[in-house]
Amino acid sequence: MSFDKVAIIGLGLLGGSIGLAVAQHLPGVLTTGYDSDPAVRRRAAERGLVGTVCDSAAEAAADADLVILCVPVGAMGEAARALAGSLRDGALVSDVGSSKQSITRALAEALPGRAVIPAHPVAGTEHSGPDAGFAALFHHRWCILTPPEDADPALVGGLAKFWRALGATVEVMDAEHHDRVLAVTSHIPHLIAYTIVGTASDLEEVTRGEVIKYSAGGFRDFTRIAASDPTMWRDVFLNNREAVLEMLDRFLTDLAHMREAIRAGDGESMFELFTRTRAIRRSIIELGQDDARPDFGRADHG
Amino acid sequence: MSFDKVAIIGLGLLGGSIGLAVAQHLPGVLTTGYDSDPAVRRRAAERGLVGTVCDSAAEAAADADLVILCVPVGAMGEAARALAGSLRDGALVSDVGSSKQSITRALAEALPGRAVIPAHPVAGTEHSGPDAGFAALFHHRWCILTPPEDADPALVGGLAKFWRALGATVEVMDAEHHDRVLAVTSHIPHLIAYTIVGTASDLEEVTRGEVIKYSAGGFRDFTRIAASDPTMWRDVFLNNREAVLEMLDRFLTDLAHMREAIRAGDGESMFELFTRTRAIRRSIIELGQDDARPDFGRADHG
Ligand SMILES: NC(=O)c1ccc[n+]([C@@H]2O[C@H](COP(=O)([O-])OP(=O)(O)OC[C@H]3O[C@@H](n4cnc5c(N)ncnc54)[C@H](OP(=O)(O)O)[C@@H]3O)[C@@H](O)[C@H]2O)c1
Ligand SMILES: NC(=O)c1ccc[n+]([C@@H]2O[C@H](COP(=O)([O-])OP(=O)(O)OC[C@H]3O[C@@H](n4cnc5c(N)ncnc54)[C@H](OP(=O)(O)O)[C@@H]3O)[C@@H](O)[C@H]2O)c1
Repeated sequence: MSFDKVAIIGLGLLGGSIGLAVAQHLPGVLTTGYDSDPAVRRRAAERGLVGTVCDSAAEAAADADLVILCVPVGAMGEAARALAGSLRDGALVSDVGSSKQSITRALAEALPGRAVIPAHPVAGTEHSGPDAGFAALFHHRWCILTPPEDADPALVGGLAKFWRALGATVEVMDAEHHDRVLAVTSHIPHLIAYTIVGTASDLEEVTRGEVIKYSAGGFRDFTRIAASDPTMWRDVFLNNREAVLEMLDRFLTDLAHMREAIRAGDGESMFELFTRTRAIRRSIIELGQDDARPDFGRADHG
Repeated sequence: MSFDKVAIIGLGLLGGSIGLAVAQHLPGVLTTGYDSDPAVRRRAAERGLVGTVCDSAAEAAADADLVILCVPVGAMGEAARALAGSLRDGALVSDVGSSKQSITRALAEALPGRAVIPAHPVAGTEHSGPDAGFAALFHHRWCILTPPEDADPALVGGLAKFWRALGATVEVMDAEHHDRVLAVTSHIPHLIAYTIVGTASDLEEVTRGEVIKYSAGGFRDFTRIAASDPTMWRDVFLNNREAVLEMLDRFLTDLAHMREAIRAGDGESMFELFTRTRAIRRSIIELGQDDARPDFGRADHG
């Protein structure tokens, strides 16, 4: 099965990128869109992020056979409730939220009796808002579907086909496993980056000016991640608490070992870890999940 | 004053980049070089990293008025001893090591009565070896000089001029302060990156394949840093122990606060931190210390 009319709720980085990608890869598909912020709706219309920008979620969803919620994780339930009454029979509701267990619960509650298949395209940048989206965001990226056990296989297949058309590779897993995997590959890295950037900006012995000047030694990579949208990330940590705390405690245990190695001058343990971690980088590059050029080919050496 | 003959000991990323940068920016200056690894010497000659590749450190240094040690932090003393006997009267010895207090001590011990001014160009990539160097490495980057109190101001000025000619902006500070600043802007970020990559690769609930596949959510940035040279980084942590432990403990305190905020569902504290950290990113970009494009303009979206 395939979808002819797609409604996108939330026209920021993810929503805008989906709209642009549909226009590029599925030119026959009609798109409507809605965002709660009038300024975002205006900008979305200017950029042509969707075919028609509507004045309410209900209007945007009314005719759609696929509705994709692209709002912060904590706003998913509210966004679903706003359009629940106007959904067509047989319409599928999906989303792009970064955590899946709590969203699955919120959508089931807001949309009783409706077909819901949560999804998460593992693709993003540190920018957000209606100017941030671009059609190639999902190219060579994975999109994870977390269908409930009783989901209609035809709808799962249709949604998978949709994401593949946008350039993504689709994987299916359960929401609980998703939340564990993303805790380690995305949520903990963001938490650590936010924290160390906070630590560095609060020091008395080292000025903020110095931190900024000498950031090319490693710190600047963390600041990029720590420039991500605060609402989005607050919602992720509020909604994926258990998996995040579990993975954070593993990390803290390992960091305590490294602390002890440094204290004891144990060069061998350090060397062993520092050697082991290179293999993962190689695999990521082989799999096309990062740019192999030094510093990712950054252009700031001028 | 200026230097006419520069000897470079260690022909990897830093040594090779200095050689190439001198050829480009100071074409009248002669360069010699030496590396303890014969394969590196061969490759350095092929790439023309220095004018003359020599068969010993003593030979490379014999005629130089500036000798720059570009070996791992822990090898600085040994590299200095190997050429101590062949130094010309009045020759200046400097280095590029990433920590400064221990190197200052090691060089003073190995080169009694000699002019020594340690330095650290805050510029690098995750690649190392004789193929990694490039002439623009120091453009728009800072180079920190940590002269001893009794250093000859003319030599300090000459060394500053040399680094400016290579494209760097020069700052002078004491070695102790350097080690604190770099602990926070470089050493702790590397320690954290190595550790989380290690944690992720040891999990049982999440496979290594999954970690690699879904790395685009944030993790891949850490793997780039954790692909840096193990010898170099072991030496940094063995040699900048105190400052690293001090900054690590600050980070751990802040991370414990964030852990508690997540546990307690305290969205306000999260939002406050996540908002504050964006300002630092803006300053880094304004100062030209990073590429402002999303994902640093990485090319892997294809
Ligand atoms: N950014 C990433 O890297 C990334 C990657 C994968 C998945 N995701 C997920 O994608 C979702 C959207 O993230 P994003 O980066 O696209 O955020 P974004 O650029 O901030 O866009 C979200 C938009 O949704 C609007 N909105 C909020 N509540 C709404 C509601 N009830 N109804 C309609 N519109 C509403 C927001 O308006 P206001 O600003 O006025 O609230 C905003 O314009 C999040 O769930 C996030 O977890 C993000
Ligand atoms: N990489 C960075 O991002 C960066 C940035 C700023 C400063 N630094 C500092 O720069 C220095 C060099 O780092 P790098 O990245 O250029 O490392 P690199 O690419 O590994 O090069 C170092 C070279 O020095 C050689 N060497 C080791 N001991 C020697 C000795 N006693 N005499 C002569 N050659 C010797 C090594 O040979 P073997 O491999 O056979 O030992 C290697 O070829 C380090 O002190 C580091 O802290 C690095």
